[in-house]
Amino acid sequence: MSNAILLVSCPDKRGITATITQFVYEHNGNILHADQHIDDQTFFMRIEWSLTGFSIKKADIGKKFESIAKKFKMKWEIHFTDKKPRMAIFVSKHLHCLYDLLYRYRSGQFRCEIPLIISNHVDAKSLANDFGVAFHRIPITKTNKAKQEQKELYLLKKEQIDFIVLARYHQILTKQFIKNYQNQIINIHHSFLPAFAGANPYKQAYQKGVKIIGATSHYVTEELDEGPIIEQDTVRISHRYTLDDLIHKGEDLEKVVLSRAVRWHLERKILSYNNKTVIFD
Amino acid sequence: MSNAILLVSCPDKRGITATITQFVYEHNGNILHADQHIDDQTFFMRIEWSLTGFSIKKADIGKKFESIAKKFKMKWEIHFTDKKPRMAIFVSKHLHCLYDLLYRYRSGQFRCEIPLIISNHVDAKSLANDFGVAFHRIPITKTNKAKQEQKELYLLKKEQIDFIVLARYHQILTKQFIKNYQNQIINIHHSFLPAFAGANPYKQAYQKGVKIIGATSHYVTEELDEGPIIEQDTVRISHRYTLDDLIHKGEDLEKVVLSRAVRWHLERKILSYNNKTVIFD
Amino acid sequence: MSNAILLVSCPDKRGITATITQFVYEHNGNILHADQHIDDQTFFMRIEWSLTGFSIKKADIGKKFESIAKKFKMKWEIHFTDKKPRMAIFVSKHLHCLYDLLYRYRSGQFRCEIPLIISNHVDAKSLANDFGVAFHRIPITKTNKAKQEQKELYLLKKEQIDFIVLARYHQILTKQFIKNYQNQIINIHHSFLPAFAGANPYKQAYQKGVKIIGATSHYVTEELDEGPIIEQDTVRISHRYTLDDLIHKGEDLEKVVLSRAVRWHLERKILSYNNKTVIFD
Amino acid sequence: MSNAILLVSCPDKRGITATITQFVYEHNGNILHADQHIDDQTFFMRIEWSLTGFSIKKADIGKKFESIAKKFKMKWEIHFTDKKPRMAIFVSKHLHCLYDLLYRYRSGQFRCEIPLIISNHVDAKSLANDFGVAFHRIPITKTNKAKQEQKELYLLKKEQIDFIVLARYHQILTKQFIKNYQNQIINIHHSFLPAFAGANPYKQAYQKGVKIIGATSHYVTEELDEGPIIEQDTVRISHRYTLDDLIHKGEDLEKVVLSRAVRWHLERKILSYNNKTVIFD
Repeated sequence: MSNAILLVSCPDKRGITATITQFVYEHNGNILHADQHIDDQTFFMRIEWSLTGFSIKKADIGKKFESIAKKFKMKWEIHFTDKKPRMAIFVSKHLHCLYDLLYRYRSGQFRCEIPLIISNHVDAKSLANDFGVAFHRIPITKTNKAKQEQKELYLLKKEQIDFIVLARYHQILTKQFIKNYQNQIINIHHSFLPAFAGANPYKQAYQKGVKIIGATSHYVTEELDEGPIIEQDTVRISHRYTLDDLIHKGEDLEKVVLSRAVRWHLERKILSYNNKTVIFD
Repeated sequence: MSNAILLVSCPDKRGITATITQFVYEHNGNILHADQHIDDQTFFMRIEWSLTGFSIKKADIGKKFESIAKKFKMKWEIHFTDKKPRMAIFVSKHLHCLYDLLYRYRSGQFRCEIPLIISNHVDAKSLANDFGVAFHRIPITKTNKAKQEQKELYLLKKEQIDFIVLARYHQILTKQFIKNYQNQIINIHHSFLPAFAGANPYKQAYQKGVKIIGATSHYVTEELDEGPIIEQDTVRISHRYTLDDLIHKGEDLEKVVLSRAVRWHLERKILSYNNKTVIFD
Repeated sequence: MSNAILLVSCPDKRGITATITQFVYEHNGNILHADQHIDDQTFFMRIEWSLTGFSIKKADIGKKFESIAKKFKMKWEIHFTDKKPRMAIFVSKHLHCLYDLLYRYRSGQFRCEIPLIISNHVDAKSLANDFGVAFHRIPITKTNKAKQEQKELYLLKKEQIDFIVLARYHQILTKQFIKNYQNQIINIHHSFLPAFAGANPYKQAYQKGVKIIGATSHYVTEELDEGPIIEQDTVRISHRYTLDDLIHKGEDLEKVVLSRAVRWHLERKILSYNNKTVIFD
Repeated sequence: MSNAILLVSCPDKRGITATITQFVYEHNGNILHADQHIDDQTFFMRIEWSLTGFSIKKADIGKKFESIAKKFKMKWEIHFTDKKPRMAIFVSKHLHCLYDLLYRYRSGQFRCEIPLIISNHVDAKSLANDFGVAFHRIPITKTNKAKQEQKELYLLKKEQIDFIVLARYHQILTKQFIKNYQNQIINIHHSFLPAFAGANPYKQAYQKGVKIIGATSHYVTEELDEGPIIEQDTVRISHRYTLDDLIHKGEDLEKVVLSRAVRWHLERKILSYNNKTVIFD
């Protein structure tokens, strides 16, 4: 059976929670989760209810909810758990995150489809084949990026891709590209942002002599490595670690941090605002 | 101004959230936090609202809510943030947790009163004096426990103590004593429970050769070290640690883990059920 | 080029470090790492030196060292980094650790050979095939264990296996089997030992209501889940986690904790004593 | 009884460890700890031995060692555990770290003397009095810093202070001041450096929306918040944390991170090089 998930943000005001829960209740919905949060006068809510016995048809729920949404000036989105989102993965030469995502996908941890892997290199091809996912190599040079991104967008549309995961994809996307997937591109950066943004974060960390390294997953915005942070984690290192040790330990973090972000995105647990995220975990 | 905090648990059923939020809304309450959780067919909720403009007097809110509570077979409690809970601390010879609690109290991290420290030893006396808290030494022997606990209970009633924190108090309380403070006695155990229950947990950990140690705060029940866990934390050690190093590192954990439990208890963020806790953090 | 790694334990006494380092130095070895540890009157050392220019042939180093070893009553072992250890993996139906090990192997994180995977089930077969590793299904029943272990030992000898990794292998090995691989069988247990030993540790953890879960890698001894602990790690959970969430989060820990143990074992960084381990990290 | 601790760094070369351990051994010293590290062609060592029965008098050990030191071009220092270092604490208005340091001092965790607390404010005075430590208020304005630092230096010399701990001291020290205490001033910065250097790190972290906060202890150099990092730790937060919650959780980190740095400094476990630290833990 299917559940509905409603995500809402609006200026805080008396009665929002009561009105929304009443809406679900009076149409015979059974609330499974309801979580709200108020920050800086803004109200955020995620509510999930079972559609079993719900008296409004899926296609009509949005229309019916519209009058409530208007009254409170809500931004809102509704999702249904019986529709699997379609995810594309972009990757370059480091394959550990790709590997990890595909394994979780195959073992049923992600409720999604993965019809498409795109890379500027050829390294991921055999791995994509092993998992039966279509692989497209689209090399990027200094001069061809705009044209190549058009190819990518064509493939993404054709495959009806809902969101993109950059699993160590070492190319900067253009503003034009990003506009097509606002808050729908998840990146993994191999440092504890905002420390060590940009290139070679492990080398930066090594040279700085930090005692802990991190990884950060975030939505991609126009500003490089500056989008809303979804998840971070850290792990202790010591002076005994070579740069290689540090990279290996970091890769384990990257996989976990990226996979959590993907999972929360799939489960509609993330609301972005003000370049930050609310995670309804 | 004051807020009301309502904690509810009951068999899960359609309409509970809607009914409760409607109750607050129709009496002109502004919901500040609402969090619910469903586990094994049981519904749990914590809801906090501002009493500014609320149309029911504090003293009457309970009565008015009673009919809703009955309908859904709720266990419930209501608290008001303008009433400071009164806390007693029991301690033996290790003073680090006592010290930490008193410092947090003095620096305003805890919204409570601490009118009373009880110990079976004299070690904590000068510290109690430094902070201006009444100190009572009540030594416990194999034969006098029942009688001494009566003295303790007398002091606790006299000071209108709401809850007790065992800040490394090395005496086992009797069933009779505990009955007076169900879910109102917080203990810190210096291990990651259920590992190393009972005496000398650091020594046990040292001999076992674990690579991580922990601390656990829990409500006290009749079964020693078996009450509902409120909070735990862990820290990495290595073979280089002596037993003393391990104790020092562990003491830092104990302080943090105990203080989090006390704070959540004060903020009415804990619901116990089934020998487990829901923490509405 | 190759390095020599010498692991030593003996009763503590004046002059051990000086004697060993002098031995390396006077034969023109360049010490790359030297780490020692003293615990309870016992001396432990790991020393690694480059064989470039070393004046004793590899085959003769042991003989030459023997007189020093006798003088100090040492237990000792010597390894050379140009010899890759041969590892077998035992697995049942949960494949995440197997997957992780094979990926690390393929990507060069482990300096070893993996010629053999043994399972009591068929589930791992296609994964073994993907990675080109020989797979043998050896089902175990209540009555055939002794006989089947003989088959396993035959395969292990035939493939000259140095050590075995139990990557979620849900069979208890017999004493007779274990004797063949003392301190050479690494298990991953999906709890923070000694908490939740035995079957279904995640379910035990869920029912207990712990706030943190863990994973433990250890050498296998006759006592189930009681062998010397090599590595542990923990991760925070909350009352919001279902048993399934807990399992998924735990699996990520298991992979990391097991892979660290395998790596340290391969790099000869582990000394066992007294049912504990010294990790020369 | 007393131990000697020798800290050494020099260009890496064959025979350093053997020569040093031989020096200790031939004069009848019993090595308790020996740890070495090689990084980027540089050799680092910490060696601690018991002076019981050592055949060189304390006052002469340095002279005797000089010829070895010259041969290998060593930077070196020797310390004796029977001499307690003398520590001064500088603090402004946030007293949690001061409190924590004084408690550890009183309870015997730090082997040192604390004869002096200096502050630009008056807030810490009564706390200093409680612990019987001399308190000097030395207010700093835009124009009087150079003069006031002279006063501070006078007090430090008079009290024979070996090293200074900035326990949330919100004044930038001048180059001239720092020169007097190279690698002898330990600061706690309330962020995970290099993220959020400078003023108001918690506010910066809150606005950035990080999911983890940190604290960093480091030696003070001329570049603000850029000195060699001694220790760091991190703790998970969520969107539910207000700025105040974040500050409270961060303060617990600061105390632990600063106290570890102080302890390692006291135990002579830190070697600085290249704006990084080796921690012989």
